[in-house]
Amino acid sequence: MQHYNHNDLLNMNARYRVQLMNSLSGFKSVNVIGTSNAEGKHNLAIFSSVFHLGSSPALVGFIMRPDSAARHTLGNIQQTEQYTINQVSESFWRKAHQTSARYLANESEFNQVDLTPDFINGVDAPFVKESRLKYALTLREIIPISLNDTQLIIGEITHIVCEKEAIKDDGYIDIESLDTVALSGLDSYHSTQRLSRISYAKPDKHSVDISLNGDIPDNNPVG
Amino acid sequence: MQHYNHNDLLNMNARYRVQLMNSLSGFKSVNVIGTSNAEGKHNLAIFSSVFHLGSSPALVGFIMRPDSAARHTLGNIQQTEQYTINQVSESFWRKAHQTSARYLANESEFNQVDLTPDFINGVDAPFVKESRLKYALTLREIIPISLNDTQLIIGEITHIVCEKEAIKDDGYIDIESLDTVALSGLDSYHSTQRLSRISYAKPDKHSVDISLNGDIPDNNPVG
Repeated sequence: MQHYNHNDLLNMNARYRVQLMNSLSGFKSVNVIGTSNAEGKHNLAIFSSVFHLGSSPALVGFIMRPDSAARHTLGNIQQTEQYTINQVSESFWRKAHQTSARYLANESEFNQVDLTPDFINGVDAPFVKESRLKYALTLREIIPISLNDTQLIIGEITHIVCEKEAIKDDGYIDIESLDTVALSGLDSYHSTQRLSRISYAKPDKHSVDISLNGDIPDNNPVG
Repeated sequence: MQHYNHNDLLNMNARYRVQLMNSLSGFKSVNVIGTSNAEGKHNLAIFSSVFHLGSSPALVGFIMRPDSAARHTLGNIQQTEQYTINQVSESFWRKAHQTSARYLANESEFNQVDLTPDFINGVDAPFVKESRLKYALTLREIIPISLNDTQLIIGEITHIVCEKEAIKDDGYIDIESLDTVALSGLDSYHSTQRLSRISYAKPDKHSVDISLNGDIPDNNPVG
């Protein structure tokens, strides 16, 4: 096993360190965030830090870096308090990655990378038509993280749009069937293969495999 | 496409809603966090919210829910200010899931689920021997999120232990070669298949596939 101690980490080449550190948390979600500014100009940017924060209220968070190429995303969210989060799937992951280039404020990433803005009533921020699972949010809070000058952006979900067939009987969405991709490090994209869904863990019994719809097989009782 | 509006979301069955909301962010990382209390009693708990926060300083965050079965994890971190994060791989994902059961404070999850505590000099918190990529952290900050009574726990990495062969020339760690798993929803585990690594995006050119070691092929120049 390779062992890096604190001194090794502090003295590491900066680019090597960034690659290494970005590999540690495990697989990351891949989403593009759509916004408009007050004049209705669209913006689209890829984020690997979108995470579930709570179900009731339905809250989702993501991290904004101070030097981010996605700086227009934050400005637009502060202006309009609306944004969309769109899962990235196999059919457009290269285009999604390309949104991370430092385009100018007057260039729409939708045009630059050839993705299609799409709209629903009541939401000014653009969705990505090519995305198979997407939702709109209203800004709820921006929490500054002074340790490294990042910000945690928290929004509440107001609309969800998803391919119907992917939503299973118990509410689970089969995002693998939507070809949603995962990221490792900064630049490695992955498709997935399900190992299994598994039942809720209890102290006195082992969890068992459950069906895609969430059913516990009769011949393998957990109760 | 299925469209849920805000009213639909507010009136949704609670269990259905939890499954649905947990599916929205995309694939999640799967890690088990090892801690000890002041008396040296070990604890191990699974988390799907571990995320990269920054490389310099090397910061990693995760979310603690108020009603979590992992409540002992937070208490231990507050007592000792040390913890380990261990990537979950295919060989022990079922055992990792089982740590989410509500064991009593005096029951070690290591014993209950049959995983092996492992130690290095200078770190009192237990690593998971079976994990192929793991690191120790010192607590840096706990940020309360009042919107839903959760907490963001931020630690700085002090040691990294990883299988040598997985660390590539540019610092990228091939976590797929470590059989690291990903999660969707609350209970669906997945292995991965690499689509490609891809070069840093620039406005005036398209990104190209790069090698696992981070090399840009000569016959496909981006410069």
